Amino acid sequence: MITNLYYSQEGHGPYALHDIGDLELEEGGTIRGCKLAVATHGKLNAAKDNAILVPTWYSGTSKIMEQVYIGKGRALDPDKYFIVVVNQIGSGLSTSPHNTPAPNGMADFPKVRIGDDVRAQHRLLTESFGLNQLALVVGGSMGAQQTYEWAVRYPEFVKRAAPIAGTAKFSELDFVLLETLSEAITSDPGFRDGSYGSSVEVAAGLKRHAKIWTVIGWSADFFRAGRYRSLGLDSMHSFVDNFMTAYFAQMDPNDLLAQAWKCQRGDVSRHAGGDLAAALGRITAKTFVMPISHDTIFPPDECEAEQRLIPGSAFRPLTSIDGHLGLFGTDSGMLAQLDANLKELLEIPVS
Amino acid sequence: MITNLYYSQEGHGPYALHDIGDLELEEGGTIRGCKLAVATHGKLNAAKDNAILVPTWYSGTSKIMEQVYIGKGRALDPDKYFIVVVNQIGSGLSTSPHNTPAPNGMADFPKVRIGDDVRAQHRLLTESFGLNQLALVVGGSMGAQQTYEWAVRYPEFVKRAAPIAGTAKFSELDFVLLETLSEAITSDPGFRDGSYGSSVEVAAGLKRHAKIWTVIGWSADFFRAGRYRSLGLDSMHSFVDNFMTAYFAQMDPNDLLAQAWKCQRGDVSRHAGGDLAAALGRITAKTFVMPISHDTIFPPDECEAEQRLIPGSAFRPLTSIDGHLGLFGTDSGMLAQLDANLKELLEIPVS
Repeated sequence: MITNLYYSQEGHGPYALHDIGDLELEEGGTIRGCKLAVATHGKLNAAKDNAILVPTWYSGTSKIMEQVYIGKGRALDPDKYFIVVVNQIGSGLSTSPHNTPAPNGMADFPKVRIGDDVRAQHRLLTESFGLNQLALVVGGSMGAQQTYEWAVRYPEFVKRAAPIAGTAKFSELDFVLLETLSEAITSDPGFRDGSYGSSVEVAAGLKRHAKIWTVIGWSADFFRAGRYRSLGLDSMHSFVDNFMTAYFAQMDPNDLLAQAWKCQRGDVSRHAGGDLAAALGRITAKTFVMPISHDTIFPPDECEAEQRLIPGSAFRPLTSIDGHLGLFGTDSGMLAQLDANLKELLEIPVS
Repeated sequence: MITNLYYSQEGHGPYALHDIGDLELEEGGTIRGCKLAVATHGKLNAAKDNAILVPTWYSGTSKIMEQVYIGKGRALDPDKYFIVVVNQIGSGLSTSPHNTPAPNGMADFPKVRIGDDVRAQHRLLTESFGLNQLALVVGGSMGAQQTYEWAVRYPEFVKRAAPIAGTAKFSELDFVLLETLSEAITSDPGFRDGSYGSSVEVAAGLKRHAKIWTVIGWSADFFRAGRYRSLGLDSMHSFVDNFMTAYFAQMDPNDLLAQAWKCQRGDVSRHAGGDLAAALGRITAKTFVMPISHDTIFPPDECEAEQRLIPGSAFRPLTSIDGHLGLFGTDSGMLAQLDANLKELLEIPVS
């Protein structure tokens, strides 16, 4: 357990810490007194049928979901919906390697799967908020993985689902991709097998990790168009140093590694003995599958192949040259497309 | 200077070492007695107008060009043409960091640019082989960079040009991509700022470098289709370990870094004060620009934008889900397309 001021109410709040009790893990072991950092927006109605769940992605917290995706007049409108943003386990705000005391903290943190997060969230929603349904689960990247897991695991609970820029079953290629990201960190001598004293000691590894993200997270068109200038950076070099590296430098290495390990193993087919079609066939939520056109991590045709296995679903790709990291909200045109899709989805009657 | 048995006549021959004399470098400094490793196929005709130059790519040598691209009945047919395959400086066979004695070897090897290679090759072809023209320059990836450099620098010399899966001006994104590859090596403590005793000491860094190549070199479709099975590997894991890692593990880290540095700075616009259109406008060679459809390092539209700047050129994309590393010859269908294009190009009359 170490102190990391990045993960704070100042930077990412307001959020509330909910102790959901002991969480037994799919890989074995238990998180004692698992805490979920939760940000809510809007009010639950009397019928308790206006709740929306937003899980978070790798390295992201509830704050970016609030800043980029939630707002009056937006699809995720707090005037209409009770929006619950739950930071994933390992995110740095919820129970995570860096904030867990010995003997289970840091490199000794247990392995957590997407399914553990979703069961933890289910407990939170049912026990803390008294919900028995969700009008929508929507998330990007690892948030999409959790969205798929929710829709397959609790089909009666999830009325609508909107996985954005993510897959129900992580690909072999992406598995190796995340391995390169994780090894950029673990290969830093300052990482010391996870027993570093602060993120600063792993700065070189975090920087290499940020560079790989730079290369695979945005698209070739993004760079060709000099889109980083629209983010206020005047050169590619500055973009790498002052945006991508600065973003990751403050984060906790063990937390990132815990998320990456989890992400690599996202696979709803585990619910059907490895049969992806059977697992996705269980989904009853009205589902809009929304890849991003220039996303090379989760290519649209890969997402479409999964969408075809979901009964009654629709394929709604978003167009943006920003690629996967367009999730950061860098392309207002893409956000407008997303909002239009989500509004349409939310208007579809459900039983 | 260290011994590395990978770079040998046994593994990569037959080739001849030509001492082209001292080579002054664009970045300053001189390579004393620069040696080029050259493999030739076929015979020069009396008119000396049937010579084809094939420069090599990053990590590759003349051997793979011989095995995959040259042969009786192929476009590059030794029965018709005098084919000269020149290993680039830093390739490990020609003058390179690992085979240059102190004080200029290993990490002290001078910086070499694409232009240095092309001037060295020009000297070789004119002085050793008595050529004053080339029927064709053809190369992939860094070989394409050299092809573009040849066509811009010596327009009267190059009658036809076929850059495959490469660009005339390296992109900002690819610059950072190569930085991640190089840093995977240099961050290995065993690299010791370039003063390692053998590649084995840098095995971990070379493996990380191989994994990044795995992720960015092939396409998502390649992995989804399980194409590594056609290479004799029975799993993704085995592919990473026994193909990609095994391939790079034997190579010299300083040699790879010298090639990467050169590759990052490939830019024919240097001949026209930074004006790419003006530089490419100088090309008089009949040029077929051949990107690979699923290549994300050199996307077809990026190559097409350059092609449009070359007078009288044609855009001839090759279709293969193997992506950039389809250059290895893994897709016989792509090789057939390439051969058809090259045969057509070679039949176009030139003055």
